[in-house]
Amino acid sequence: MTNIPNLSDIRQAADRIAPHAHRTPVFTCEDINRLCDAELFFKCENFQKVGAFKFRGACNAVFSLPEKEANRGVATHSSGNHAAALSLAARLRGIPAFIVMPRNAPVVKKNAVAAYGGKIHFCEPTLRAREETLAKVVQVTGAHFVHPYNDYRVIAGQGTAALELLQDCRDLQMILAPVGGGGLLSGTALAVSELSPSTKVIAAEPAGADDAYRSMQAGRIIPSENPVTIADGLLTSLGSLTFPIIREHVRQIVTVSEQAIVDAMRLIWERMKIVVEPSAAVPLGVLLEKKIDVRGKRVGIILSGGNVDMDNLPWVSRSE
Amino acid sequence: MTNIPNLSDIRQAADRIAPHAHRTPVFTCEDINRLCDAELFFKCENFQKVGAFKFRGACNAVFSLPEKEANRGVATHSSGNHAAALSLAARLRGIPAFIVMPRNAPVVKKNAVAAYGGKIHFCEPTLRAREETLAKVVQVTGAHFVHPYNDYRVIAGQGTAALELLQDCRDLQMILAPVGGGGLLSGTALAVSELSPSTKVIAAEPAGADDAYRSMQAGRIIPSENPVTIADGLLTSLGSLTFPIIREHVRQIVTVSEQAIVDAMRLIWERMKIVVEPSAAVPLGVLLEKKIDVRGKRVGIILSGGNVDMDNLPWVSRSE
Repeated sequence: MTNIPNLSDIRQAADRIAPHAHRTPVFTCEDINRLCDAELFFKCENFQKVGAFKFRGACNAVFSLPEKEANRGVATHSSGNHAAALSLAARLRGIPAFIVMPRNAPVVKKNAVAAYGGKIHFCEPTLRAREETLAKVVQVTGAHFVHPYNDYRVIAGQGTAALELLQDCRDLQMILAPVGGGGLLSGTALAVSELSPSTKVIAAEPAGADDAYRSMQAGRIIPSENPVTIADGLLTSLGSLTFPIIREHVRQIVTVSEQAIVDAMRLIWERMKIVVEPSAAVPLGVLLEKKIDVRGKRVGIILSGGNVDMDNLPWVSRSE
Repeated sequence: MTNIPNLSDIRQAADRIAPHAHRTPVFTCEDINRLCDAELFFKCENFQKVGAFKFRGACNAVFSLPEKEANRGVATHSSGNHAAALSLAARLRGIPAFIVMPRNAPVVKKNAVAAYGGKIHFCEPTLRAREETLAKVVQVTGAHFVHPYNDYRVIAGQGTAALELLQDCRDLQMILAPVGGGGLLSGTALAVSELSPSTKVIAAEPAGADDAYRSMQAGRIIPSENPVTIADGLLTSLGSLTFPIIREHVRQIVTVSEQAIVDAMRLIWERMKIVVEPSAAVPLGVLLEKKIDVRGKRVGIILSGGNVDMDNLPWVSRSE
């Protein structure tokens, strides 16, 4: 896929992943609506396979490959949800997934990838070691590299979440999504711009990892440097493919404090009775901080995932 | 309602509460199915109004009252989910709810009842003070007492959860529910015995609060004395109305260790991405301990509620 995905590409992605991915439900919560004085529609990607929207993009990429190319397998360097997602998508297609991970990645992440059948190659915990190890793995195996977000097939796949949300909820005035590398955000923006052009797409970003906000201001990609946030899915920099899409189609990027992220996460757990990861709570954090005016509006929110270390909840004070 | 509810009463209860209660979804989880070697269908009462199945019974009782009687309000002594449920049901009918609570009840419970509009009357933390205060409140206000479980209208209301589960999932070989006072269990047993007589109803009870198990063995109600369990919804004794129904229609009561309850609760949070309270995890605890044979079977599980103190999660070690 060499062109920016259009609505037809996103619809094709939806058909392609339909046998494998969940069509996740949209939840509402009267308490939170009252608190925000708005009607909120939460697209529950925490209930997606592997617990995150990432499965959509990985699945679309894996099942887009021609058979001959697919048979050599897929590869990526990631230690998070994309690695788990690619491993599962590959297993469902019956091909190998080679995952390059830093030696010091948390055991829980190693286990997740291994449980989905990914073949882990460990490397030193530097960006250079990661890229070199990946290049070597690709050279030896002939596997096809699937980037976590800077890939049009992945972007189209992530766009299917917004496609479903718009099918289920009419007349949304805004859709909010978190932004890290921009795969979810750019896919969302592309789906919405064609399907419901009057719906504003707004991105939510932790203030401690505000490279997308600054990139938007500067008009060029400013890399994420030493980000500090509990939203560990949003640490990466924008990509050369995601940034132009975001620049064109995203109305606004709003930053959020760590406290608002924790408050929003806890609110979702307590009131909606669902488990979401910190990254997923960032958009509701925007509303709690009243950074945008949603009064009386119908607002879609993409809850990006639900993979949380239950031993490390942000509101539990730990003995240091 | 002076007779044991039959299926027609439970259907009427379902119609009565339909405008007010959620028809909760049934969730499945491939990971947990694999772990238990069975097909499990979880009825998500954690998503019910006030976060627990208790709203069904309270709502049925409140909306069953003739107008004249209703106008004087309803009353109960409870500090848990029933108090919140009765308060909300009363508010929806536009009548007062008087809630007698021990002074030392947790702040979070007082706030919940107050938030739903319940009028709290505090008493000393003894059973006698509770009953005396309730009697006084009823005498002064003329309010109608709604017991948390020893009331046929409440039992019929609780039975609507199993009714919906059986409508949504055909051919269940078993249904598991937790047992405290027996309202949910007896309502479930009544619905199942008429609608799907081949489905076995099995109760799950914490070993540290095994009065129902012992009552079943003894053939008479053995009161719960000094129960010790994190399943704080299951501390109460069986009632004179619930016990005979359970004796007749429940196949088996199985006890569960505290560790299995915590493990099951955490498993549900981590794999299903939903928040359930310890009491709700007791039935899955039975399966983790392999106390009954479910291999290859289709099993319904009622997840009774999702009200949890997020500052006091059982797997987080606290500094003492």
